[in-house]
Amino acid sequence: MVLLRPVLFVQAFVLLILAAMTVPPALIAEWHNSATLRTFLGTGCACLVLAVPAFMAKGKEPLWLSSRQMYLVTTVSWCVVSVVGAIPLYAALPGTTFTDALFESVSGVTTTGSTVLSGLDTMAQSILLWRALLQWLGGIGIIVLAIAVLPYLRIGGMRLFKTESSDWSEKRLPRTQNLIWAIGVVYLGLSCITALSYWLAGMGSFDAIVHSMTTVATGGYANYDASLGHFDNPIILWLSSLFMLLSALPFLLYVSLLHGQVTPLVTDRQVRGFLLFVVVVTVVLSLQRSIVEHESILDALTHTTFNVISVITTTGYASEDYLTWGNFAVTVFFYLTFVGGCSGSTAGGIKIFRFQIGLMMLRNQMRQMRHVQGVFTNFYNDRYITDDILRSVIAFSFYFTLTVAVLALILSMCGLDFVTSLSAAATAVGNVGPGLGDIVGPAGNFSSLPDAAKWSLTLGMLLGRLEIMTVLILFTPTFWRT
Amino acid sequence: MVLLRPVLFVQAFVLLILAAMTVPPALIAEWHNSATLRTFLGTGCACLVLAVPAFMAKGKEPLWLSSRQMYLVTTVSWCVVSVVGAIPLYAALPGTTFTDALFESVSGVTTTGSTVLSGLDTMAQSILLWRALLQWLGGIGIIVLAIAVLPYLRIGGMRLFKTESSDWSEKRLPRTQNLIWAIGVVYLGLSCITALSYWLAGMGSFDAIVHSMTTVATGGYANYDASLGHFDNPIILWLSSLFMLLSALPFLLYVSLLHGQVTPLVTDRQVRGFLLFVVVVTVVLSLQRSIVEHESILDALTHTTFNVISVITTTGYASEDYLTWGNFAVTVFFYLTFVGGCSGSTAGGIKIFRFQIGLMMLRNQMRQMRHVQGVFTNFYNDRYITDDILRSVIAFSFYFTLTVAVLALILSMCGLDFVTSLSAAATAVGNVGPGLGDIVGPAGNFSSLPDAAKWSLTLGMLLGRLEIMTVLILFTPTFWRT
Repeated sequence: MVLLRPVLFVQAFVLLILAAMTVPPALIAEWHNSATLRTFLGTGCACLVLAVPAFMAKGKEPLWLSSRQMYLVTTVSWCVVSVVGAIPLYAALPGTTFTDALFESVSGVTTTGSTVLSGLDTMAQSILLWRALLQWLGGIGIIVLAIAVLPYLRIGGMRLFKTESSDWSEKRLPRTQNLIWAIGVVYLGLSCITALSYWLAGMGSFDAIVHSMTTVATGGYANYDASLGHFDNPIILWLSSLFMLLSALPFLLYVSLLHGQVTPLVTDRQVRGFLLFVVVVTVVLSLQRSIVEHESILDALTHTTFNVISVITTTGYASEDYLTWGNFAVTVFFYLTFVGGCSGSTAGGIKIFRFQIGLMMLRNQMRQMRHVQGVFTNFYNDRYITDDILRSVIAFSFYFTLTVAVLALILSMCGLDFVTSLSAAATAVGNVGPGLGDIVGPAGNFSSLPDAAKWSLTLGMLLGRLEIMTVLILFTPTFWRT
Repeated sequence: MVLLRPVLFVQAFVLLILAAMTVPPALIAEWHNSATLRTFLGTGCACLVLAVPAFMAKGKEPLWLSSRQMYLVTTVSWCVVSVVGAIPLYAALPGTTFTDALFESVSGVTTTGSTVLSGLDTMAQSILLWRALLQWLGGIGIIVLAIAVLPYLRIGGMRLFKTESSDWSEKRLPRTQNLIWAIGVVYLGLSCITALSYWLAGMGSFDAIVHSMTTVATGGYANYDASLGHFDNPIILWLSSLFMLLSALPFLLYVSLLHGQVTPLVTDRQVRGFLLFVVVVTVVLSLQRSIVEHESILDALTHTTFNVISVITTTGYASEDYLTWGNFAVTVFFYLTFVGGCSGSTAGGIKIFRFQIGLMMLRNQMRQMRHVQGVFTNFYNDRYITDDILRSVIAFSFYFTLTVAVLALILSMCGLDFVTSLSAAATAVGNVGPGLGDIVGPAGNFSSLPDAAKWSLTLGMLLGRLEIMTVLILFTPTFWRT
């Protein structure tokens, strides 16, 4: 109980945030005289009521989270948000099963963006706004997790990004809180700029706000079944490409930028590696499309850039069905599902720095094979990579792949074909959104999947979002042993 | 030149072995009055002639191979055997391009078993024997490499299997040579027992000999287009399953067995893990087939056991088209392509011990996350796993996957669809044989692939067989710097 009290206490704040989050959709519902008003008011009140016992769980001791409690807080918070997020969807959308509502909610909170809903074009705005808010909350949640919690918890080599702010000693705590505030400001600011840009490019104000939230969260929920393809406007695609890309960079660097430090953003190895990779893939694919498939170069560039960035940043918007672009493109998009953006952003996937460190290790090993006695050290952004970090990084890629493999196996047991199973598993664990094939591809819809597959994917999205180990550790006996 | 002289000298022996290998097919050709006699005589003589300058490269110093030269010897030897192996196929089979001949030869020497030839049922016996001999030679070659060379060269965590016999100091050399002889005896003995068993089960003597060679080499070349399905005999399938399984166990343990030591074979963790895995997969898949697909349990068990063992040991025989067994089976067979047998056997793939160590590491990391200050050590077969070995093992799985991914990308550029590209790449690098889909699946034939794809797969098979790094290091500038 001593273990769980602080975990419960934190949920009071989570519930308060969720209660606050029901206000905008409720207002919209009131404005439109929509029947969803009651749903959101009810959900909000329920959150407030539940927050009371959670708040009382604090006890008299000062609040202090051990690493064990941090694991619990992380997973429990994401689950609470997911379940609460599902309630309005379940209540307000007739014919929606709880499985579907939860899938949609988790897909939102994990900023995946796979959807089981169709008829978005005519859906109540309050519901569309709620989906976007879930992604927006999930986005800021994951940044805070990546910057302040995971480095402290020794997950997947994230210690590489350990700063003073991931030091949770009492002395440092105010500093950490300041940083989290600064990140919040950057996140809100970026969202506003995105919304304004979309609006200037011709989107309606509601669409601009909703899409700005799902862009900055690299979530990918759109207000239309045709995703951003609905607008048929190259300027919107280019703007969206730009903001997805910006949202996949480490948010810490923007905080530095606010403090007038431009250098970190320019010299950061992760940023450079990421941008280089995006440019190379986009150029190769655009050239292939314009030369082999005889597409006009500008059209090819617009759509390739948009869809490549959308998948690589794990957003998951689509402007057209890129699976019709030929075998090479299909394979490329499958690989992009795994890549992901930079650590400390809203993007999911394995993340660029792990590939960089993997390649660094390959080079080192070659050297070692040649000069058996040599000692080779690695630096990343002027930081020495210890053996321990190296191992965590490589191990994470291994576990990520293993998780995808196991999930795909379960999906194939549910009767899905090989390509659908494998790509759906990858897109869920990587928090991307679309996979390959008719059902889970960019032109498909997850609604026709069997319930067992939806539950498995729901779990896969949560696992992927919380960097796998954070969740898995809760299922080991040692974790619960005092 | 000092670097290359000993490398050339070793090729003299390789060429002599190849010359000797042309004798049996030549005799068969003479017996059948086949026109292929000249081809084999010619190839044999060419080998003898080429061996002379290679032999003269020795110089006066005593022969001594540095690790650099061992890398070169390994790759060069496999290339020489591949090219010489292709000559009779190219010369004796009208309409066969050199690309096809080389693909078939490399597929043999690497014990992969993918074929571009069809009409095997009516092909000259001399050619069928030659293909089998290539696999047989490749099989013993890889065992010697895994036991005596790779542990010394620090490849992919193979140091875990370092014995006194992988010590190439002058003092130890006689011991190493003895061991290699013992391995040879075991290999020959196992082949003879296999051949005898096949013959007793009703195979013709020629078929029994040829299939025994490709079984023990876990190569998978068969004398019939329908592979072992041709015989339609469950006893042959069960015998073949048994001998494939035995050939995928570490051959060092058989040598211990010859010396009366039974314990190592029984207690070896790799052997236990491997057998357990095979049993679990076979049982699950058999049950699924007999319950869901309403297959008779005995039939399901026979064919599942045979095909699972065939793929997991990287042999690649087929008794029927297992791709028609449903989505779950397809996904399982795709995964099995990666698994492979035990280290120190003729099997390819990532190999069981690397998965065991990966899982061991996962468990450790969980413990470490829970007890930050704890120090956790790993043992494998009573041997302490150093950080260095751990890293090599995990890194190898990473590079293996990366190699498959790059190869699949190239294949998709050649126009192959996603499933064919991915599974063909995996089956080549894992040295298995069949992949998924109509072309590269167990019922397909690689002959219809474009030439560029064949060349890429040829390279992939060589890379996979030589544990990737052994070949890649030759392409780094540091390797050639003195």
